Amino acid sequence: MIALGDRAVAAARALAALDTRRKNAILRGMADAIEAQRATLQAANSQDLAAGHVAGLSAAMLDRLTLSEARVAAMADGLREVAALRDPVGRVLRRTKRPNGLVIVKRRVPIGVIAIIYESRPNVTADAAGLCLKAGNAVILRGGKEALHSNGAIVAAMLAGGTPQGLPADAVQWIATPDRDAVKELVQLEGRVDLVMPRGGESLIRAVMAQARVPVIKHYKGVCHTYVDADADLKMALAIVENAKCQRPGVCNAMETLLVHQDVAARFLPMVARRLGVERHVELRGDDAARAIVPGMIPATGDDWHAEYLDLILAVRVVPSLEEAVSHIQRYGSAHSDAIVTSNQETAARFLRDVDSATVYVNASTRFTDGGEFGMGAEIGISTDKLHARGPMGLEELTTYKYQVTGTGQIRK
Amino acid sequence: MIALGDRAVAAARALAALDTRRKNAILRGMADAIEAQRATLQAANSQDLAAGHVAGLSAAMLDRLTLSEARVAAMADGLREVAALRDPVGRVLRRTKRPNGLVIVKRRVPIGVIAIIYESRPNVTADAAGLCLKAGNAVILRGGKEALHSNGAIVAAMLAGGTPQGLPADAVQWIATPDRDAVKELVQLEGRVDLVMPRGGESLIRAVMAQARVPVIKHYKGVCHTYVDADADLKMALAIVENAKCQRPGVCNAMETLLVHQDVAARFLPMVARRLGVERHVELRGDDAARAIVPGMIPATGDDWHAEYLDLILAVRVVPSLEEAVSHIQRYGSAHSDAIVTSNQETAARFLRDVDSATVYVNASTRFTDGGEFGMGAEIGISTDKLHARGPMGLEELTTYKYQVTGTGQIRK
Repeated sequence: MIALGDRAVAAARALAALDTRRKNAILRGMADAIEAQRATLQAANSQDLAAGHVAGLSAAMLDRLTLSEARVAAMADGLREVAALRDPVGRVLRRTKRPNGLVIVKRRVPIGVIAIIYESRPNVTADAAGLCLKAGNAVILRGGKEALHSNGAIVAAMLAGGTPQGLPADAVQWIATPDRDAVKELVQLEGRVDLVMPRGGESLIRAVMAQARVPVIKHYKGVCHTYVDADADLKMALAIVENAKCQRPGVCNAMETLLVHQDVAARFLPMVARRLGVERHVELRGDDAARAIVPGMIPATGDDWHAEYLDLILAVRVVPSLEEAVSHIQRYGSAHSDAIVTSNQETAARFLRDVDSATVYVNASTRFTDGGEFGMGAEIGISTDKLHARGPMGLEELTTYKYQVTGTGQIRK
Repeated sequence: MIALGDRAVAAARALAALDTRRKNAILRGMADAIEAQRATLQAANSQDLAAGHVAGLSAAMLDRLTLSEARVAAMADGLREVAALRDPVGRVLRRTKRPNGLVIVKRRVPIGVIAIIYESRPNVTADAAGLCLKAGNAVILRGGKEALHSNGAIVAAMLAGGTPQGLPADAVQWIATPDRDAVKELVQLEGRVDLVMPRGGESLIRAVMAQARVPVIKHYKGVCHTYVDADADLKMALAIVENAKCQRPGVCNAMETLLVHQDVAARFLPMVARRLGVERHVELRGDDAARAIVPGMIPATGDDWHAEYLDLILAVRVVPSLEEAVSHIQRYGSAHSDAIVTSNQETAARFLRDVDSATVYVNASTRFTDGGEFGMGAEIGISTDKLHARGPMGLEELTTYKYQVTGTGQIRK
């Protein structure tokens, strides 16, 4: 693993010196090869699917694992889209001329070596490698063991397509061993690995955090809230709540808890019960006040406020004030994405200020927390950490900066 | 320690809501109280100094520990200077209007709770607290046990001066117990402490890193290089080398290793031997090629290339090329501050690009790596990490951002 790290460090140096045109040619070469090798990729994928059936993977897991023709095409298109994005590397963030004549340039540079640890979706292999490369970073990929053959075939295709275009040796490395100790060693390679990004379920991320000695950017889970204020437009609120819960319930920016101000609860909760409960088959779990209004709700327990259901289940609580809504979110939330629906600008401003989450919304669905929706062009992940990157992470978040200082012989007095 | 963390979290929320005027009034109130309580501070400091004498602290340690009248005044002035700095909190970093009408504001906000772990200098207590406060962060201070009474008195003065001006309770907390387990617990308070900054010797920082579960920003040491290129103005090079080594040898941005291109070594090294070796009493430790030119040099061993002497000692090596100089710096350096002296712009550009250090210099002394010299107004520390903050860290580096998204009922299709 140390040798692998050393190779990545050498590759990172080579990558940092590549110009944008060269990196884009590599990305397009990789995309072409993935398309050209579709039959090979799907054959490898069939091996994983067969093993997955034997191992008794769930239908949802098998679906995520499947490389359909459309998904192979999407991987290739994704790499071409990354090629089309603006290169953040080299950009001047600030230029200062000091009174002594020193010119200080703060310039974006690649981070160096990035390790991505992920689960069953094989398309992450191409997506993550493409974004890391465009930002000038060497990448070490460690996918789930269920996708071993698929990932190997995708990496082989990327190398076959990228190398003739100038992809430096070892710029994309892949850990094939299913040995768990490999991950432990990887996340302890201080001085060789600059950043680890675990992507997957909470247990994967907690395991990485417990072992890591290098910096990690992550989110454990998304327990997202929508707070319907006393001054909310209830029709707008209902549309937002329905979208945040139902449009794609299995993702991290879906709503898990609905907070409703007591002054509008008697009007709003029956609307929720009808639209979400009856029409969309959402299981509603309410506190006593909510159940007094909609008696059909299941009683919520303490665990419900912490729960990331990732399913058509919604916890519902009636709150007496904005302050109580904010307190609930700070106490039980995951600092991912939280929304208020209100027509009161002052209330909105207080919510935006006081809720300490990566993304806070006024009058919009939490489902917009996404690099594409934010105009970043692509997303390598979402961070609920506060350092370096917060919220959706695109190419810029895969860079750091350095200070380049140019003088004419200045010495310090 | 958990209770202390919870109090800090509550204080951080209160601090995030304070406006700039209020924060500045608090800082000035703290400065006034430190001046007014000078006699009390010096009495407490005398206890530490007496204990230090008994414990046999070195003269240098005792000097660092001493709170002279001038140093007390400097602490107060430092707080007033921080009050005069521009407040980074609330600043809009980017504002985007999406095609669907969503307005996305990326806004600077405080990080939250910051723990500072430091060694003997009691003035760090006031400096660090002031910077954290101005950036809207609650701070947990843990100073060296040698300065226990001094730090306690400084914290008491800051609270006495700040509280009447609106300093939130627990915004500045101080860990008085000399128990080492307290530090271990502190750096594992995930969810309560957002950032740990250890300041001090390498062993302190390594100990923190080995135990930390929360993010740490740090530099282990400063092994800074100056590379004198074949195309250098040797008179300029000599002035820079002298300044980088001798102006203040005990600090992290002082030069520790001199690299000289072989084409100018025969002319330049005798100049170095005379100016630094003879006139400034610097002990020169050279490789074989350097010693062939200046036979009086002590032979350098492998350890010398890694050494942070913090003293009037200089390792000297002759290199055949820019590439070899860069390789040496990448292999042995600490990614802190490294300089080239050259009149060749192409060589300078390659050095600026290829040396992967927080600060890289052309034709200037490494001694300029400092928040004040960079125009930041103040410095909380220097980072050789690549995430979040790199190089000198000022107020901006004590903040993060969040996305505030305002819509008119947008839902995701």
